[in-house]
Amino acid sequence: MTPTTGVWFVGARGSVATTATVGALALRDGIAGPGGGTGCVAELPEVAAARLPDVGELLIGGHDVSGTSLPKRAEMLAQGGVLPARLPEVLAGELAEVDARLRPGAGPATDATQREAADRIEADLRAFQAEHRLRRVIVVDVSSTEPPLAEDPRLDSLAALERALDAGEAPLPPSSLYAYAAFRAGCPVVAFTPSPGPRVPAVAELARERGLPWAGSDGKTGETLLKSMLAPLFTMRALRVRSWSSTNLLGGGDGQTLADPASAASKTVSKARGLESMLGHPVDGPLHIDYVPDLGDWKTAWDHVSFEGFLGVRMSLQFTWAGCDSALAAPLVLDLVRLTARAQEAGETGPLAALGFFFKDPAGSDEHRLPAQWDALTAWCARLGAEGAA
Amino acid sequence: MTPTTGVWFVGARGSVATTATVGALALRDGIAGPGGGTGCVAELPEVAAARLPDVGELLIGGHDVSGTSLPKRAEMLAQGGVLPARLPEVLAGELAEVDARLRPGAGPATDATQREAADRIEADLRAFQAEHRLRRVIVVDVSSTEPPLAEDPRLDSLAALERALDAGEAPLPPSSLYAYAAFRAGCPVVAFTPSPGPRVPAVAELARERGLPWAGSDGKTGETLLKSMLAPLFTMRALRVRSWSSTNLLGGGDGQTLADPASAASKTVSKARGLESMLGHPVDGPLHIDYVPDLGDWKTAWDHVSFEGFLGVRMSLQFTWAGCDSALAAPLVLDLVRLTARAQEAGETGPLAALGFFFKDPAGSDEHRLPAQWDALTAWCARLGAEGAA
Amino acid sequence: MTPTTGVWFVGARGSVATTATVGALALRDGIAGPGGGTGCVAELPEVAAARLPDVGELLIGGHDVSGTSLPKRAEMLAQGGVLPARLPEVLAGELAEVDARLRPGAGPATDATQREAADRIEADLRAFQAEHRLRRVIVVDVSSTEPPLAEDPRLDSLAALERALDAGEAPLPPSSLYAYAAFRAGCPVVAFTPSPGPRVPAVAELARERGLPWAGSDGKTGETLLKSMLAPLFTMRALRVRSWSSTNLLGGGDGQTLADPASAASKTVSKARGLESMLGHPVDGPLHIDYVPDLGDWKTAWDHVSFEGFLGVRMSLQFTWAGCDSALAAPLVLDLVRLTARAQEAGETGPLAALGFFFKDPAGSDEHRLPAQWDALTAWCARLGAEGAA
Amino acid sequence: MTPTTGVWFVGARGSVATTATVGALALRDGIAGPGGGTGCVAELPEVAAARLPDVGELLIGGHDVSGTSLPKRAEMLAQGGVLPARLPEVLAGELAEVDARLRPGAGPATDATQREAADRIEADLRAFQAEHRLRRVIVVDVSSTEPPLAEDPRLDSLAALERALDAGEAPLPPSSLYAYAAFRAGCPVVAFTPSPGPRVPAVAELARERGLPWAGSDGKTGETLLKSMLAPLFTMRALRVRSWSSTNLLGGGDGQTLADPASAASKTVSKARGLESMLGHPVDGPLHIDYVPDLGDWKTAWDHVSFEGFLGVRMSLQFTWAGCDSALAAPLVLDLVRLTARAQEAGETGPLAALGFFFKDPAGSDEHRLPAQWDALTAWCARLGAEGAA
Repeated sequence: MTPTTGVWFVGARGSVATTATVGALALRDGIAGPGGGTGCVAELPEVAAARLPDVGELLIGGHDVSGTSLPKRAEMLAQGGVLPARLPEVLAGELAEVDARLRPGAGPATDATQREAADRIEADLRAFQAEHRLRRVIVVDVSSTEPPLAEDPRLDSLAALERALDAGEAPLPPSSLYAYAAFRAGCPVVAFTPSPGPRVPAVAELARERGLPWAGSDGKTGETLLKSMLAPLFTMRALRVRSWSSTNLLGGGDGQTLADPASAASKTVSKARGLESMLGHPVDGPLHIDYVPDLGDWKTAWDHVSFEGFLGVRMSLQFTWAGCDSALAAPLVLDLVRLTARAQEAGETGPLAALGFFFKDPAGSDEHRLPAQWDALTAWCARLGAEGAA
Repeated sequence: MTPTTGVWFVGARGSVATTATVGALALRDGIAGPGGGTGCVAELPEVAAARLPDVGELLIGGHDVSGTSLPKRAEMLAQGGVLPARLPEVLAGELAEVDARLRPGAGPATDATQREAADRIEADLRAFQAEHRLRRVIVVDVSSTEPPLAEDPRLDSLAALERALDAGEAPLPPSSLYAYAAFRAGCPVVAFTPSPGPRVPAVAELARERGLPWAGSDGKTGETLLKSMLAPLFTMRALRVRSWSSTNLLGGGDGQTLADPASAASKTVSKARGLESMLGHPVDGPLHIDYVPDLGDWKTAWDHVSFEGFLGVRMSLQFTWAGCDSALAAPLVLDLVRLTARAQEAGETGPLAALGFFFKDPAGSDEHRLPAQWDALTAWCARLGAEGAA
Repeated sequence: MTPTTGVWFVGARGSVATTATVGALALRDGIAGPGGGTGCVAELPEVAAARLPDVGELLIGGHDVSGTSLPKRAEMLAQGGVLPARLPEVLAGELAEVDARLRPGAGPATDATQREAADRIEADLRAFQAEHRLRRVIVVDVSSTEPPLAEDPRLDSLAALERALDAGEAPLPPSSLYAYAAFRAGCPVVAFTPSPGPRVPAVAELARERGLPWAGSDGKTGETLLKSMLAPLFTMRALRVRSWSSTNLLGGGDGQTLADPASAASKTVSKARGLESMLGHPVDGPLHIDYVPDLGDWKTAWDHVSFEGFLGVRMSLQFTWAGCDSALAAPLVLDLVRLTARAQEAGETGPLAALGFFFKDPAGSDEHRLPAQWDALTAWCARLGAEGAA
Repeated sequence: MTPTTGVWFVGARGSVATTATVGALALRDGIAGPGGGTGCVAELPEVAAARLPDVGELLIGGHDVSGTSLPKRAEMLAQGGVLPARLPEVLAGELAEVDARLRPGAGPATDATQREAADRIEADLRAFQAEHRLRRVIVVDVSSTEPPLAEDPRLDSLAALERALDAGEAPLPPSSLYAYAAFRAGCPVVAFTPSPGPRVPAVAELARERGLPWAGSDGKTGETLLKSMLAPLFTMRALRVRSWSSTNLLGGGDGQTLADPASAASKTVSKARGLESMLGHPVDGPLHIDYVPDLGDWKTAWDHVSFEGFLGVRMSLQFTWAGCDSALAAPLVLDLVRLTARAQEAGETGPLAALGFFFKDPAGSDEHRLPAQWDALTAWCARLGAEGAA
C-alpha cells in the first residue's frame, strides 16, 4: 500500500510512539496476530463509516531528544511485556528505517532562538512531506508532560506571539512551539498529552487562520475513561455521589515526569475537570498520581466512590484498573491520526469537538460523558461518510 | 393530594415493598429529608417530561402471606440501616392504614383451585379500585423469586390455559397467577422479580387481548447494572473481554430464596443473558449468587474482568459494589408504577420495551446496554410528554 | 464494683474517648449486648492472665477544650452508626456524671504560662484521685494529632526544661505538657496519638526519675495493623516486596486534623517507619492520608503490594479495609489503661516495650511485626500473672 | 556439585514440576538471576539452620503420563510469563537429560494389576537411586488432584490392603499407589496435592512400619496462605469474624481438573478445614474454585471478610491476590524435598508435623495459623541443626 498520510511524532522514541509504530508496521505487514488491532476504535463499523485512511497508508517520522534507537526501545518494551516478544526482531529492519527518519528535537543545543527552532521544525515537516509525496502530515505530541502554563500576554494573540519571536524571545512551551511550527507547515496537530500545545490562544489562532484542524488534549486511557463511563451511571439512576477518591500508580516514563509536582498539577487538573461537569456539582475526594518505578509501563488505579440512594442510605463502589499505559494509548494515537487526516480532507478547521471521546480535556467541547461522546463521534463519522471523500 | 393511582404489591410486607411504601409516604408528607427522593429516576427532567402521576397520588395496597405487620417490618428495616431510624415511628399510623388494606396471598390455605384463587385476587383488585375511586391500579410483583418454569403446553395459549383452569388444574406458577388475575381486573403489571409472571405466553396473550401494558422483568439494581454500563465501555473502545467473573453475596430475603439452587438458576440465567448480547460473543467466567445471612439487607458484588488490548496485551478491571438491596430497588419500583400508569393512560399495550432501562431481562427488547436503554427511555418520555395526557 | 482505677482522658469529648466511655459504662452495667466487649484484647485468656483491673473498676474523667457535652457527643456518634442507637439514651445520666468531672483543657485562655498550666493539670489529677479514693490514675492522650516537633535544646533534658518553664517560656507541645503534668502527679501515661507526648527526652527523663511507666505511641487500628501482619507473611515466605502503596481515606476529626499537612507528616512518618524495618529493606510506594468528610467516623484504606516470587515472577496483593475508627480504637484504649495500671502496680517503669502490640510507633522497641508483638505481650502478661498482684 | 538427593516427581511434566526443575537447574548453574531463589523458604537463615542439602545436590527424575516433553513444556511456561524467556533455551540440553530419566506413569495401559504397577514403580525408584548412587530419593506428588475417597475397609490397615492387592484388586487411588510403592522402595513422600496419597491409613501404616517420614498435604500457596495469616489477626485483636467469602479463579491445569466438581470437593474441604479451626467457631460464607481458562497459569482470589468490633459495629476487609500458581508452588516443592531429606537423615518417621507451614491440610498437626506454624518449623530446624548431620 502506498503511503498517503504522514505521522510525525513529537517524542518518537517514547513508549507510546514506539508501541504505535511497532503496531502500525505489524498491522500493515499482516503480522500483528489475531488480537493485533484490538483497541483500534477506527476499525469499529460506526467509526470506519467515515472512510478513513488505512493504517497501511501511514508513514511515520518524528522528532526526539532521546539517544536510544527505536529498535532498542522496542526490545525494551517487549521485555516489559508491552509488545509481543517476536515483533521487535521481525520488524528490526523497518524500525531502523523509521529511526533514520527521526530528527533531533528542539532544545538549547540545537537552536539559538525559538524563531529558529520553529523554522527548523517547519522545514523538517515540509521536507518529510515532499520527500515521501504525502497528501498530508499529522503531527502528534506524545512527549513528556509539561507543567501548567503561567499567564503570559505574549501568548494571548498571534500578533503578540510573532512580535515576541521576532524579538528573539522564547515565550512558547515546547509543546506549543511544535504546534506553532506544525500549523506553519500546514499540518494538523493531535495533542495527546496535557501539555498546552495548540490550546495556547496565539497558536489556536494560527490554526484558525490557516484553516487547519487539531485535536486534544490528554488521551483518556485509564482511570478517567472509567470515570467518564461510571459518572453517567450515577446521574442516569439519580444516585447522589458524595465523594470520589482516586489513586493512580504509574511506573513508566510518564510516571517519572509526574513525580515532578509541577507537571503532575497539569494532569491532575485535566483529570478533575470532568467529574464535576458530569455530576453537576462539586464532589469531595483526593486525586493522586504517584510514580512507582517498579510498575514499569503498567499502571494501577483505585477509585472509591461513596454515594447515596433512597432515603439517604449510603453505599459504595470501588474499582481497580490494571492496564498497560502504552498499549492503551497507542491504538488511540493511530485512530486520532486517521480521523484528523480525514477531518482535514473534509475541510474541518479548529478544535475537533467530535473527537472528545478520546480525551480527558476535550478541546472544543464541554462534554465529558463517554456515551454522549460516542454518540457525537459516530454521528460525525456518519456525516463524513455520507459527504464522501475529497 | 387525592390518590389517583393504586399500587398493589404482591409481597407487600417484603423488604422492597416496605421500603417503597415508607418512602412513598415520607415523600408525600414532605418528611423524607434532603436525600429522600434520591434514586427516583422519574424525578429527572428527561423522565419527568412524560408528565407522570406524582408520588403523592399513589395509594398502596397488596397481598402477602407473611404475618409480620408493615409497621413492624419497617422497624426491622430501620434497625438494619435500610430506613432512617425516625421514619417508622413517625409513619406508624399511616403504615398501619396500609397494612389494614393488605389481603392474604394466594395459597393452598386460602383457595381450593387456581380458578378460585384468580377470581379472588381479581375481586380484591376491583374492590380496591372501587373503594378508593382510583383511575387505575398497577400490580407490582416484588415477592420471592420462583424457580424457572418447565415447558407446559397448557401455558402456550390463553385458550389452553382457560381450559386447564376450568378443569380444576393448577398450571400457573404464583407470579403468573397474579399477573393473570391482574389483567382480568384490567390492571397493568410490573414484574420486578425474575419469576415467569406475565411472560408466560398465555398470560401475555391475555394482556394483549385486554389492551393492557406490562413491564418486566427482574429489576436491575446492582452488579448487572454495572455490567450494563461497563460492557459498552469495552465495545466502544474495541477492547476484547476475555473473561468476566462475578460473585454476588446477598444477605436479605432474596438471598435466602436464592440459597435454593432452583430459584438461583432463574436469577443466574437472567443475569447472564445480557453480557453475551452486549459483547457480541460468549465470554468465560463463573457467575455466583451466594446467601450470606450476616450481610442483612446488604449485598456485595465483586467482578473481575480480564481483557485484551493492542497487540494482545492483557489487562484487568475489578470492581466491588456494596449496596443496600431494598434501597436500590424501592425507588425504581415507584418509578415503574408511575411510568406504567402513564403508559396505560397513553394507550400503550403489551410489554413496554422503553422500560428496559430498569430490568435485567427486558421484555420486548434485546437491548441490555444502559446508555442505549436510557436513550430509549427518554425518547419515549419525550414523546409521551409531547402527546399530552388522555 | 467500687472504682479503683481512674482514667483521665486528654480529649475527653472526642470520638475515641466518648466511644470508650460509653463502652466502659455499658460493659460495667452489663448492657453492652453480646458483641459489646468485642475488640477488647484484655479479655483474651492470654492477656487476662496478667490479672488486670476489671472494666467495671474504671472511673473516667478528663480534660477537653470542646463545648459539646459528652451526652450530646454520644448521640452524634450513635447517629453516625458508631454506637448502638439505644445506648446514649440509656446512659444519659451516667454520661452527664462523667461530663461533670471534665475540666477545661490547657490553652491561652486558661493559663498565663506553661508552668501555671502544668500546675493546674497536676492539681486536677491529684484532686480527681483524692476525691474518688483511686489507687491510681492513668492519663490517656486521645486529643488531636500535633505536627512533628522541631529540634529544641530545652527539651533535651529535664533540667533544661525546668529552667525554661521557670523562665516563663512555653517549650512544650500540648501533648508533652499533659505528660509532664501527669508524671508530676504520679500518673502513668498512654500516648494513643502520634503527638510527641512522653517521648520528648526531658519528659521521658521525668518518668524515669519518678519511677513511672508509660505506653505509646499512635494506636495501631487499621491499615498499619494489616501491614504489620502481612509484611511478615512475605518475609516468612521469602517473597520480595517491590512496592507497597497505601491510600487512607478518613472522614472523622482525625481526618480533619490531618488535612493540615504538618500534622499529617507526623502520622505518615509514624506509619512508614515500620514497613522498612519489617521487610529489612526500603520499599517504594506512596503513603497518603486524605480527609474525606463524607466518610464520617469511618475510614477506608486501600493498599497495593507488588512482589516478586520464584525466578523473578511478579505478582500482587491488594486489600481494602473499611473500618470505624473510634470503634477500633476505643477497646484498645481500655486495654491500655488496664495493662498500664497493672504495670504500675507491678513496679514497671519507663516505656512499656511489651505493649508495642498496640502501637504504630512502639516506644521502647524496634519490633513492628504483629505476631512477634503478640508473643512479647502474652509472655509479659504470663509473667505478671505469675508474679501475683501487689 | 555431586548429586546426593534424588527428587522423583509424580507428574514430572506438569507446570509445578517443570517450574521446579527449571528453577533447580538454573540455581545449580548460577543463572537464575538476582531474584532466582526468591520464594525459597529453605534459604532463610532460620530454616537453613537445619543444615539442608543444597539445591545443587538434587537430581530430578519422575513419572508422567503426558507426552509433551519437558523442554517443550518449559517453553510453553515461558510464553505464559511463568519462566524467564531465556531459561528454556539455555537449559534445553539439561532439561532433555531430565526428560530422558522420566518413566511412564501408572495406568491401565502399562500395568495389568495394581500389584504389578506398585512393583514397577518401586523398581523404577530403586533403579534411579542405584544408577545415580543417591543417598536417598524423595517422591513428590504434583500430579492432578483426585476426587475425595469413599470409605473402603481395604484401606483401613496394611494387612487388608496387601490381601486386596494379592487378590488382584485395585483399591488404591493413584496418589496412594505411588505413596505405597515409594515407601516400599524406602523413599519418603511429599504430598503436595489434596489427593489422598500417604494419608490413607494402610499406606500411613506402611510408612510407620518402614520408619519413613512423609509430608503433606496440599501446598498452601495463595488464598489459604493469606487466610492463615489474617485469621490470627482477628483472633489476636478479639474481633469477631461474621462471614468469610472466597472466590478463586484459576486458569491452569489445576483449574481444569477442578472444573470437575468431584475433584473440587477435595480441594474445597481441604481449604475450609482450617478457617473454623483458626477462628474457634464456624463461620458463614461461600468458598468457590472456578476454572477460567483465559487466566493461564495465573490465579486471582478475592476474599470478603465481614467482622464485628466494639459494641457490635460491623466492618469489612477485602483482598485480591493475583499470583502465578507454579511460581508460588515450585520453590516450596524444592524446600520440602530438602527438609524431608534432612528429616530422613535425622531419623524422623511418620507425618512431619513441623512442615505444616507449607500445607493447607497439615498432616500430623491441627495448627493452621501461619505464625505458629513458622515457630514450629524454625524450632524444628534449630533442633536439627543442633543435633548435627548423620
